[in-house]
Amino acid sequence: MKTKFALLAFASVMSGQLCLAQTNQPVEDFKPSASVQPGSRYPQVNSERRVRVRVRAPGATNVLLDIGGVRYPLTKGDGGVWIGDSALQDEGFHYYQIWVDGAQVPDPGSLYFYGASRWGSGVEVPAQDQDFYALKNVPHGQLREVHYFSKTSNSIRRCFVYTPPDYDQDPNKRYPVLYLQHGAGEDETGWGNQGHANLIMDNLIAEGKARPFIIVMENGGGIGGPGFRPGGPPGAANGASAGGTNGAARGPGGRGGFGGFNFSAFEHVLIDDLIPYVDANFRTIADQPHRAMAGLSMGGMQTRQITLAHLDTFSHIGIFSGGSISTNDVTDMDAFKQKVKVVFVSFGSRELDPANRRGPFGGRGPFGGDPKAAVEGLKAAGINSVFYMSPQTAHEWESWRRSLHEFAPLLFQD
Amino acid sequence: MKTKFALLAFASVMSGQLCLAQTNQPVEDFKPSASVQPGSRYPQVNSERRVRVRVRAPGATNVLLDIGGVRYPLTKGDGGVWIGDSALQDEGFHYYQIWVDGAQVPDPGSLYFYGASRWGSGVEVPAQDQDFYALKNVPHGQLREVHYFSKTSNSIRRCFVYTPPDYDQDPNKRYPVLYLQHGAGEDETGWGNQGHANLIMDNLIAEGKARPFIIVMENGGGIGGPGFRPGGPPGAANGASAGGTNGAARGPGGRGGFGGFNFSAFEHVLIDDLIPYVDANFRTIADQPHRAMAGLSMGGMQTRQITLAHLDTFSHIGIFSGGSISTNDVTDMDAFKQKVKVVFVSFGSRELDPANRRGPFGGRGPFGGDPKAAVEGLKAAGINSVFYMSPQTAHEWESWRRSLHEFAPLLFQD
Repeated sequence: MKTKFALLAFASVMSGQLCLAQTNQPVEDFKPSASVQPGSRYPQVNSERRVRVRVRAPGATNVLLDIGGVRYPLTKGDGGVWIGDSALQDEGFHYYQIWVDGAQVPDPGSLYFYGASRWGSGVEVPAQDQDFYALKNVPHGQLREVHYFSKTSNSIRRCFVYTPPDYDQDPNKRYPVLYLQHGAGEDETGWGNQGHANLIMDNLIAEGKARPFIIVMENGGGIGGPGFRPGGPPGAANGASAGGTNGAARGPGGRGGFGGFNFSAFEHVLIDDLIPYVDANFRTIADQPHRAMAGLSMGGMQTRQITLAHLDTFSHIGIFSGGSISTNDVTDMDAFKQKVKVVFVSFGSRELDPANRRGPFGGRGPFGGDPKAAVEGLKAAGINSVFYMSPQTAHEWESWRRSLHEFAPLLFQD
Repeated sequence: MKTKFALLAFASVMSGQLCLAQTNQPVEDFKPSASVQPGSRYPQVNSERRVRVRVRAPGATNVLLDIGGVRYPLTKGDGGVWIGDSALQDEGFHYYQIWVDGAQVPDPGSLYFYGASRWGSGVEVPAQDQDFYALKNVPHGQLREVHYFSKTSNSIRRCFVYTPPDYDQDPNKRYPVLYLQHGAGEDETGWGNQGHANLIMDNLIAEGKARPFIIVMENGGGIGGPGFRPGGPPGAANGASAGGTNGAARGPGGRGGFGGFNFSAFEHVLIDDLIPYVDANFRTIADQPHRAMAGLSMGGMQTRQITLAHLDTFSHIGIFSGGSISTNDVTDMDAFKQKVKVVFVSFGSRELDPANRRGPFGGRGPFGGDPKAAVEGLKAAGINSVFYMSPQTAHEWESWRRSLHEFAPLLFQD
């Protein structure tokens, strides 16, 4: 076992940013992560970006830290306390879990997030540019939990709506809207909890770098209801159950419920139910020039498919680690050029490095061809297109925080 | 160990509602709790209100379910899966955890809640009256996450604000406000996540049983900052950290951070910072007749202390499982009678049963004397006072959901 872990850790290091040889002597400047629970001192991160966890398990014989697809053995010390470190991690947010004698459980020291199809642990590794999503003393918008009835799914659905800091000050002012989607195995809580979309926008707006707009975050996975046959088992729609939990998010059917990436159910919810609800209940500018859609990974694929099919609905398109749009996707280039104001395509640099692909779906690299070439092709055809590569990050939230930070200033500038 | 568990389980049953002798043959009609994670089938609850958990831990030698202060051994079955049941539980929501070979961890099958000074597992046991907090197809208010700067704590603080369903329809309409507090070891997420305060209000308003009002939920525990020396270690205020997590709530210093129930720091935050912020940023009716305060357990004690000291600020007082107000507390009864429109005092019936006290702080029963007698005394003095006892519940959230449901219709009726 030890040999296997050492090899995996070595491979992980070799693919990492620093390419340092791993030793058994981590730099002893570990500090509590921003994602610790109140009162907890672990998980910690050091200046090398190793993650250290600490779990009390006096009766256990085998305790592991499981992060980035690698399991690291912890060492038992006094009082039955197990402690151990990961290899070097990329900057930003990472899902992880603990194994205690074969049980896969959340780390009791960390805050919990919905991703990887479960509520579980996440660790925040400080990033050099983390200031852009820090909580600062600037005017803050609100993140609103909103329930609405969807005819398409015949259920009460939940979304989160970010309203910008000045939203409640002038009852006559109206705002553009960005529909912003999570990835597979995540839900409508992701962009607020892991993505810090609200703080990114608060900071951009305070600096005068982005126009204030509304952001709507819904659940794009596993939609049940009459008339739809998603891949997973049918069930109550997210959040809607007698005596059910709200606030602590409930996602869709989770594992295996994405219907083989058939997005038609979500497309109907979005176009037929959600957009009309938002336009009726928030002070939106309810027209195509003031409506954008973006998403990460699966949410990027949904954005691509839904915006291409509804160019009279959306004018700004953002695809984060979710493919790209090429000139081959466009049937009428003149109409496309007239309707689409921005096409933004982004990836984490590690997703694009042929020697070091950590993309989705087993690291096969970006799907849909070379995204940078696709964007160059759009540019050559006269489309306002932007390609962004997040430095030294993989298919993870730091890439998507940065993508939103780059994308938002491009929106609704006309 | 087994003998001890059996005795504890027996004691728990004897104190339960049904008073059935516990056998090893639970009724096999277990169904997934409303608090399961998406895609999970456990924890489950049967018609007796036993809780069944299921955890895969192939290498473990000792796995326990820990609920209501009792640990129940699980049994190992095929595939390293451990399964087991609790004794009979009261209706409503209960915190719990799993022990795996001495490690106290959340159940990976459940949703997570902040209480007992940690983010961890909770199980929803169906209640006969659960319809009053069910998610229904009625007009829904919004639960808004709000950041504001507090001079008192010199930090950015977070609260949640419930706005009623019609809040965004008429920009000229103004609303009364209830300030609603959680208990010790809980935070500003409690009333939304565990308490379903928003759903309780949506349903009451839809039935015409309560006047629409705003609810503000802040964090009443462990406030740090210049000028304050809380009992716990000083630290960053809740939620405010560079690159910190939002949405997944961050509470105060947690364990041991409540300053020996010295509420002066929270009193200053509430009176000097929060109320002015809310009155400036929401469409409130910003006067004493339209401002209420209530809380559970520690939040009830805070309500008692703060409202008695600020009768020019609050007109409606709710104390849920947190003591009472007696005529001895009132120095000027004429002034009190003129200013205070409602005093509402409630407890769970098990907190008041001398033979079966499951109150806070080790089950010593209600503090501050007999709450029912105190309310009768206020009534005799001409104060509009209400005493409510939640049937067959203890010092737990079902008592407080019911208390809010009884209290809300009494508010702002003049």
